[in-house]
Amino acid sequence: MITAEKALELVLSSTQDFGIEEVPFIESQGRILKENIVADRDFPPFNRVSMDGIAIDFEAFQKGERSFTIEGIQAAGTEQMELKNPENCLEVMTGAVLPKNTNVVIRYEDVEIRDGVAAVLIDDVKDFQNIHEKGKDRKQGDVLIEKNKVISAAEIGVLATVGKSMVKVAKQPKVMIISTGDELVGVEETPLDHQIRRSNVFTLVSLLKRLKIDANTDHITDDKEALKTKISDYLSAYDVLLFSGAVSKGKFDFLPEVLDELGVEKLFHRVSQRPGKPFWMGTTDNCKVFAFPGNPISTYVNCLVYFYSWYFKSNEVAMFEETAILTEDVNFKPNLTYFLQVKLSDKYGHLLATPIKGNGSGDLASLVDADAFIQLPKTEGTTFKQGENYPVIRYRSF
Amino acid sequence: MITAEKALELVLSSTQDFGIEEVPFIESQGRILKENIVADRDFPPFNRVSMDGIAIDFEAFQKGERSFTIEGIQAAGTEQMELKNPENCLEVMTGAVLPKNTNVVIRYEDVEIRDGVAAVLIDDVKDFQNIHEKGKDRKQGDVLIEKNKVISAAEIGVLATVGKSMVKVAKQPKVMIISTGDELVGVEETPLDHQIRRSNVFTLVSLLKRLKIDANTDHITDDKEALKTKISDYLSAYDVLLFSGAVSKGKFDFLPEVLDELGVEKLFHRVSQRPGKPFWMGTTDNCKVFAFPGNPISTYVNCLVYFYSWYFKSNEVAMFEETAILTEDVNFKPNLTYFLQVKLSDKYGHLLATPIKGNGSGDLASLVDADAFIQLPKTEGTTFKQGENYPVIRYRSF
Repeated sequence: MITAEKALELVLSSTQDFGIEEVPFIESQGRILKENIVADRDFPPFNRVSMDGIAIDFEAFQKGERSFTIEGIQAAGTEQMELKNPENCLEVMTGAVLPKNTNVVIRYEDVEIRDGVAAVLIDDVKDFQNIHEKGKDRKQGDVLIEKNKVISAAEIGVLATVGKSMVKVAKQPKVMIISTGDELVGVEETPLDHQIRRSNVFTLVSLLKRLKIDANTDHITDDKEALKTKISDYLSAYDVLLFSGAVSKGKFDFLPEVLDELGVEKLFHRVSQRPGKPFWMGTTDNCKVFAFPGNPISTYVNCLVYFYSWYFKSNEVAMFEETAILTEDVNFKPNLTYFLQVKLSDKYGHLLATPIKGNGSGDLASLVDADAFIQLPKTEGTTFKQGENYPVIRYRSF
Repeated sequence: MITAEKALELVLSSTQDFGIEEVPFIESQGRILKENIVADRDFPPFNRVSMDGIAIDFEAFQKGERSFTIEGIQAAGTEQMELKNPENCLEVMTGAVLPKNTNVVIRYEDVEIRDGVAAVLIDDVKDFQNIHEKGKDRKQGDVLIEKNKVISAAEIGVLATVGKSMVKVAKQPKVMIISTGDELVGVEETPLDHQIRRSNVFTLVSLLKRLKIDANTDHITDDKEALKTKISDYLSAYDVLLFSGAVSKGKFDFLPEVLDELGVEKLFHRVSQRPGKPFWMGTTDNCKVFAFPGNPISTYVNCLVYFYSWYFKSNEVAMFEETAILTEDVNFKPNLTYFLQVKLSDKYGHLLATPIKGNGSGDLASLVDADAFIQLPKTEGTTFKQGENYPVIRYRSF
């Protein structure tokens, strides 16, 4: 048995590169950017009018002129116009190119227009005011987005702006999720007294969908030969296998043995944590095998802690790490890392974690009342005190 | 001009009910649950073995017996067996039904099996140990998930467990996103000197995708008649119209006028905030119109602050509200609510917000370096001090 820290270290030392693919930028949300995004021109690309009003020659204003005959209108999206007479003005619209021979924009609120003449009502005017100067935000060639970022709506907007209609993102690993356990029946079936419905595969499918990974699923009965045949195929067809169940000490927990016989190199089996202790992890040249214990909370937390970390590390993404403050004492005797379900709340910028009373690793419904797991370090017979802070792993986006 | 608080109040008082639809549970992630999910039977549904080992009659153990002849194996997923002789035992697997006439499970680690006899190595054995008692987690009929929750992987697992292959969720509003502005060209086009590419519609599409709303998009030129014809159609075909641009004081900012002429009742125009001041909001009997200013950051922040809040309130979802602590002083003179881009970090369970230096509401790329907006209240000429905490609105999931 190894510690959770050591297990994570081993998981993170077996990352994998899945290559790169190009996708339409509008479908790239949630994917991991794999190229630097560069400004294709200056931003703004021209001296851009940033207020609706009139554009004038500042020199004329400085000389005391306050009434400007309007020569025309420079609208957004039209070619740059030219102020012919420096004592006149042009009306200008937000987003328009600043007309030639002008260098100040005075907003409509500060002028009065009558009979084609704009009278300026203010004296406090500054050179280049209300003009967003060409290249002020970014210069052509500047890196706007560095690669290895998870693409959000903000990045989508930048991709559009620089014309990246197709964008390079990390290819997703091909993942097969496999449940085992003869007590399991389908969601649409009515279980007999000694049966329960499959749920872990769907939880895993859903956790992977959050990462934009579309996984396949299968169920294999607790039959050694069946397991061996199917897993052998999956090992060559997939980048990742996620199992739920059959890794504990039971008579029908064939998985570690079968994986060994199929040449999967074991990285570890059993981690000193609760829940999720019998976690088995192994690797072949092309495939990583995460075999999670079958209890629902065990599967859930191990996917978040190990698979998520592995996925982001494989793609060189820095995860946002958070801690939260316990709102009450937690007594925990066993010498194990304790992943405890908590409900998060905020007070004065402090993230507070209130433990949810569940009934152990089988009580899936207790996850509904929580938002995250708090990770309490492995120490013997400790009370974790109210007010102490520990890492939290959230699993909700809203 | 009204305050941001008043604007939000008006937005939230014009919520709408979009009805309910049934979707396959596995596709319900991110959708809003619209029925209570009830336990279809007790959880666990039987006295469930929670450790691999042997099941015995506690009375025999109390009488001093330590060697138990093995009668057979109770595997997970098989019908309940019966211990025939109370001085014998049955091997039992995690997930199996506890055999009749047994009431204690001793794990394999604590027994030694030789020649079909299990010798118990420990003396400290408790009644009903290693048995997850029928109904202990939840009773048949208990509400496992209350409606109006955003469905995460945790809820997906519960839906599977109780056999909800189809689940009732809030119908999504039909949304049309419309950009205006003659300076805009398509993402795949090379803009002329006085043009820029469309980006706000895609940012909005992406922000709505986070809510699992698939929106349609259109672009309308700055032509009053074209606007009127198209908007008239969209008002009857959609639940929500989101506009970007044409709401300021420019000569071609026809939108407020056109919406008025089409009978859209104005709720407000112009909000004392930066960015996003010229925000226009209106409503018809069937359609809500959010007309955001065209600057990229204005559109972005207004969608997060107003549309998101409206969407969640319409669906009776309680949003997670957070505040964060400023890591440096922020000077802001205007008497406006200030939505400032910040980078979030964590220290000792405190959420820290570090302002990102952008170049105003046109600098879309500055969103890339930030994770959230901090909302600094409207006050004249205030310095917001390092260490003070204010609401934050995050826009990244990872």
